[in-house]
Amino acid sequence: TRLAYSEEDLAARRYAQGRMEEAGLSVSVDLAGNLVGRRGGRRQDAPTIIIGSHIDSVPSGGSYDGQVGSAGAMEVALRLRELDVELEHPVEVVLFQNEEGGKTGSRALVGRVEPFELEIQTASGLSIREGIRRLGGDPGRLEEVRRRPGSIHGFIELHVEQGAVLDRAGIQIGVVEGIVGIRRWNVEVVGSANHAGTTPMDQRADALVGASELTVRINDIASSMPGRQVATVGRLEAEPGAPNVIPGVARLTLEIRDLSMARIEEVLQAIRSAAAEIDSERGLTTRFERFYESLGAPTDPRIRDLVEETAQSAALSTLRMPSGAGHDAQSMAELGPVGMIFVPSRDGISHSPDEWTDPRDVAAGAEVLFHTLVALDAAEMPWPA
Amino acid sequence: TRLAYSEEDLAARRYAQGRMEEAGLSVSVDLAGNLVGRRGGRRQDAPTIIIGSHIDSVPSGGSYDGQVGSAGAMEVALRLRELDVELEHPVEVVLFQNEEGGKTGSRALVGRVEPFELEIQTASGLSIREGIRRLGGDPGRLEEVRRRPGSIHGFIELHVEQGAVLDRAGIQIGVVEGIVGIRRWNVEVVGSANHAGTTPMDQRADALVGASELTVRINDIASSMPGRQVATVGRLEAEPGAPNVIPGVARLTLEIRDLSMARIEEVLQAIRSAAAEIDSERGLTTRFERFYESLGAPTDPRIRDLVEETAQSAALSTLRMPSGAGHDAQSMAELGPVGMIFVPSRDGISHSPDEWTDPRDVAAGAEVLFHTLVALDAAEMPWPA
Repeated sequence: TRLAYSEEDLAARRYAQGRMEEAGLSVSVDLAGNLVGRRGGRRQDAPTIIIGSHIDSVPSGGSYDGQVGSAGAMEVALRLRELDVELEHPVEVVLFQNEEGGKTGSRALVGRVEPFELEIQTASGLSIREGIRRLGGDPGRLEEVRRRPGSIHGFIELHVEQGAVLDRAGIQIGVVEGIVGIRRWNVEVVGSANHAGTTPMDQRADALVGASELTVRINDIASSMPGRQVATVGRLEAEPGAPNVIPGVARLTLEIRDLSMARIEEVLQAIRSAAAEIDSERGLTTRFERFYESLGAPTDPRIRDLVEETAQSAALSTLRMPSGAGHDAQSMAELGPVGMIFVPSRDGISHSPDEWTDPRDVAAGAEVLFHTLVALDAAEMPWPA
Repeated sequence: TRLAYSEEDLAARRYAQGRMEEAGLSVSVDLAGNLVGRRGGRRQDAPTIIIGSHIDSVPSGGSYDGQVGSAGAMEVALRLRELDVELEHPVEVVLFQNEEGGKTGSRALVGRVEPFELEIQTASGLSIREGIRRLGGDPGRLEEVRRRPGSIHGFIELHVEQGAVLDRAGIQIGVVEGIVGIRRWNVEVVGSANHAGTTPMDQRADALVGASELTVRINDIASSMPGRQVATVGRLEAEPGAPNVIPGVARLTLEIRDLSMARIEEVLQAIRSAAAEIDSERGLTTRFERFYESLGAPTDPRIRDLVEETAQSAALSTLRMPSGAGHDAQSMAELGPVGMIFVPSRDGISHSPDEWTDPRDVAAGAEVLFHTLVALDAAEMPWPA
């Protein structure tokens, strides 16, 4: 557990600052509270290459999510110094603050932190405003931390997969095609509450039976359509919720993710049709209300190729795949070309003390990060492509 | 709202006592707190005929549940006085206390109130022990209120149906065949919690999808088997219950009711088979744990016939039907022959301020109660039959 803005977060940042200084980086905290270590390039006016990730965790999280990419980036900086590598572009190692609580640090770099967010209370007990101040940033001057689109040559993030695709397939390196878009809805199914003893089966309008059928259909639809979309009902509740009352209302959450927002819409339409069928068969009324949207962010095809070639030239096996989880790279995609490198998560376990990645896979990921960075430095990267 | 043991309950009992005295009954409160009005019979040593119901309500209940049978019984007593009817058997009008909170009054008459129940806090804020004392009973002497099996000639309860069977069929009098048995289970479906973004559809063991399929199957099984059994899932919850996490555990309640306990078992077996199929298809583990049982209580076939003949001779339409809800008559069935008379509930609405029964139906019910009582008085009723 290393919550953003907590004592543990501050201690880890002090440790990271020491590591960055050992790597010869000049370290500062930006106005948003991100920890930034910078080394110059041969061309000081060249756009920056940024590598990095986050070091905060969810409550009862594990030791790999964010850490692998952060330690990997610091290791790459150290290697650059040890090997005395001279690059054309300046390089920054950035440890983004509060990734788990809303990607505050990276979203500040693209001017996406809304004023109301500063008042949100985080798991640490502090508001985001208080947290930024505690890290050494200035919540009143977030506008100034914003970076200009086109100001980076590229951004590369190494991260654990947080799913079981690589682990099950026995693949070492995931070449991330993009971060999926997400839409979420609250769905309400309305029937008629009634006495569970005195209402015959054929006189019921049981909202929970309808919501349950819809849940099964949602799973079927997402499973049977071609593609890699996922749809999940994470919460389902019946009202009044007594064992002896036929539920009059059932509420559920629906989440759909895919790289393509159009595909998300297509899945939703199939689900809506299923709901309409269930409504008319069972005498129910189902309503969908969207409450969350996160746009998908494809990675840059040129960086995908660099990651893949680099890995293959080190005899590492690769697989192209979407990232089902959100990442700071999503924000950075507004500034320039981005890429992501995944390493396997054993059994796909994530956000749990049980998460684990083999040390050899961690090392392989850092190796690919290093060589991708060097290759990226040499590449022409007009943007937008 | 007239919660057992509340100020409103006390006020209504004072009013009822006045009505009973007008009817010439000698009124007392028994050791369990039931309000009892008694008139003698020609044979003072003859077993008693008891009529009555309850006057407490659930929170935000309606004006008919319990009240129709209580007022009906008092009206019958008044009519007996007005018409100067002499019966062979003594008659008692009993208003049972705390029916809604566990049938405490009637269960005390058959020695079924367990010591721990006295400490249960009721909706009034008082424990049952405090409540009994408030009504004028003595919670320390409940053993003495117990009546001997065979000590009653019969018990007849008039009640609103609390379902829509009579209302939809346009029938005036329900001849109750018995009070259904009830069993309830907590059902737990265990799968694997996982990240809703990073876990492909074909790698999931989604406990909520399994629980939802089971809920639909439960409804199908109870609907498609011949008979009048009902099965209900009133509560369903997923853990951890976040929109972006595949549920690892889902918990639901299952309730099955039928006049026959063997039929309840048969329905359960069909449901268990469905659960086993779902488990093996979806990689889940489902467990059933029974937490409640209430045995069914058939009414006495001789009293059913009396109710039916009495109603038909008054040109009232009748229908034989089970009672899906529990009633004080269920306890009284341990003491001698019991019968129940149902009158329609508009739209089947119950336990709600919207419950309503046409005044003509209320009057018809009281009429049938009166004539059934008179006929029962004249009948030989060896028991057990």
